[in-house]
Amino acid sequence: MNQIITLQHGSGGEETAKLLNEIIFKHLENPILAVKHDGAFLDLQGNLAFSTDSFVISPIFFKGGNIGELAVNGTVNDVAMCGAAPKYLSLAFIIEEGFSMDDFETIVLSIKKAAERAGVQIVTGDTKVVERGKGDKIYINTAGIGIVHSKADIKIKNIKAGDAVLINAPIASHGMAIMSEREGLQFDGDILSDTRNLNFTVKKLMDKFGSKIHFLRDATRGGLASILHEIVSEINLGIDLWEEKIVVENSVKSACEILGLDPLYVANEGVFACIADSEIADEAAAILKSENPAAAKIGFVTAEHPSKIIMESAFGGKHVVHALIGEQLPRIC
Amino acid sequence: MNQIITLQHGSGGEETAKLLNEIIFKHLENPILAVKHDGAFLDLQGNLAFSTDSFVISPIFFKGGNIGELAVNGTVNDVAMCGAAPKYLSLAFIIEEGFSMDDFETIVLSIKKAAERAGVQIVTGDTKVVERGKGDKIYINTAGIGIVHSKADIKIKNIKAGDAVLINAPIASHGMAIMSEREGLQFDGDILSDTRNLNFTVKKLMDKFGSKIHFLRDATRGGLASILHEIVSEINLGIDLWEEKIVVENSVKSACEILGLDPLYVANEGVFACIADSEIADEAAAILKSENPAAAKIGFVTAEHPSKIIMESAFGGKHVVHALIGEQLPRIC
Repeated sequence: MNQIITLQHGSGGEETAKLLNEIIFKHLENPILAVKHDGAFLDLQGNLAFSTDSFVISPIFFKGGNIGELAVNGTVNDVAMCGAAPKYLSLAFIIEEGFSMDDFETIVLSIKKAAERAGVQIVTGDTKVVERGKGDKIYINTAGIGIVHSKADIKIKNIKAGDAVLINAPIASHGMAIMSEREGLQFDGDILSDTRNLNFTVKKLMDKFGSKIHFLRDATRGGLASILHEIVSEINLGIDLWEEKIVVENSVKSACEILGLDPLYVANEGVFACIADSEIADEAAAILKSENPAAAKIGFVTAEHPSKIIMESAFGGKHVVHALIGEQLPRIC
Repeated sequence: MNQIITLQHGSGGEETAKLLNEIIFKHLENPILAVKHDGAFLDLQGNLAFSTDSFVISPIFFKGGNIGELAVNGTVNDVAMCGAAPKYLSLAFIIEEGFSMDDFETIVLSIKKAAERAGVQIVTGDTKVVERGKGDKIYINTAGIGIVHSKADIKIKNIKAGDAVLINAPIASHGMAIMSEREGLQFDGDILSDTRNLNFTVKKLMDKFGSKIHFLRDATRGGLASILHEIVSEINLGIDLWEEKIVVENSVKSACEILGLDPLYVANEGVFACIADSEIADEAAAILKSENPAAAKIGFVTAEHPSKIIMESAFGGKHVVHALIGEQLPRIC
């Protein structure tokens, strides 16, 4: 029998204790979590990075992952984007009454694996249950703490004209994996979410280049265009991009065409932009390429057109990349 | 015109930026948050405490508070229960499409005030919007980081037979405030939620008694009985309670009687149990009493009946206080 989660599991009483003991504490076991106190005790020295994200993705299971690993990778990556090594995560569930206990366990097991892959521990958490129709299966919040790399100096103000803009992977896979799932579309070659942890890649960059890496941001909601816009909106500089350097896998490209979406605005879960001093840009790009052949230097920071992003096509045409207006893909993460 | 929050506000594009800038960053302004990076940079030395909670309370506005201050106080208190001084909070919203922008701003302003009262900063956050019918107005997650007091040694294993059990305030007010609101009940004398930050009270205890305070836990979901059960279920000791020492305000008592609820199982948001070495118990109780006359030594830890809680009534009768089974008050926090 497939058991379900009930409001009782959110009561704070015996059923809550049972759910915690039989699934959460069992699978996510570690000495800090085992203390089972209201909070976790951590021993951390140095400058810390702290981040949070809630995950409300629909569907919760999709090609290439599920909401559980997304919730780990997403916060791991936000901490990594501070030039930090993520160490500890909190984990909070808002579960809709009637959610399958088996699916819940599957998600917790994915969380466990993703945490292991990223080298982080889940050290504290919370579980709430809401009535049917007041949620959508399961929402997950994670918050993460990491130690900032001793050589890191990630600051938007460190970005200067001439800096290179690098990315580490093909874009738009996550968003199109979710959209295909939602729309029931089939493409030649499965489209998989690119959800992955980026912390070890960031560590390589920090070890090697330290403060020559001026800025990092992962290109999640709103896609690559949106995060580059966030960046140029904060500095008195613009960005020039070369369209041909930005890789979109063929199946993803087809899906975008069918659905009328521009891959630049489609969410990623394993893509980040690295804004690096031009003198180390080629070397940094080579390190990224060694992990993924689609990694590339895709453009540069310029003083010519402050707060604007200009894309040059393979044929030399130029157009402005506008900020995303309106909702493109709701509940993509 | 009362504006509403739309799916666009969760897109990661321009509307998201506008919502953040015009409400969240504006009201919660501080130098760390102002960096607007994926994560916050913190400089913290020492042993840390880390905790999280999601708040799904219904209704979101109630006598004595709203979901915003609850979300601050709740996590502040969880960190404080580690014997720590909370310093930084993350703040993540899951908003239902159509939620009133005015109500959102009211909640953010309450968050600001509650954070100021508790002496914590909101340093990082996230905002998601879900479709109508996939949430319930607004859910809030906070995670908190604090510095463990240098003299603190809060560990469940430090509890020993003979320790005193103290509480700091009357019980059951929060739960009954919410239930009265839901049921549309009127009582002589308003019932107000007791939501408040407990961190400065804990600091007093730590400053004065250090490791003589063996354990702290706030009596939220499931009430005082449930958290005492959690404690005795983890140690080979029981607890004896004196019923007459546990204060329930008259209006709260009436409400409990009408609704057939036992105040021992009703949620609090400003009540904690302090398990203290018997030699300092009276002095600790006096400190708590100076803040709230209902504070009291309500019982003691005993080796006589491991894992059991026995309550003695004013007339000398004794009964077992059972663990809460089933949902008593859903979505109480």
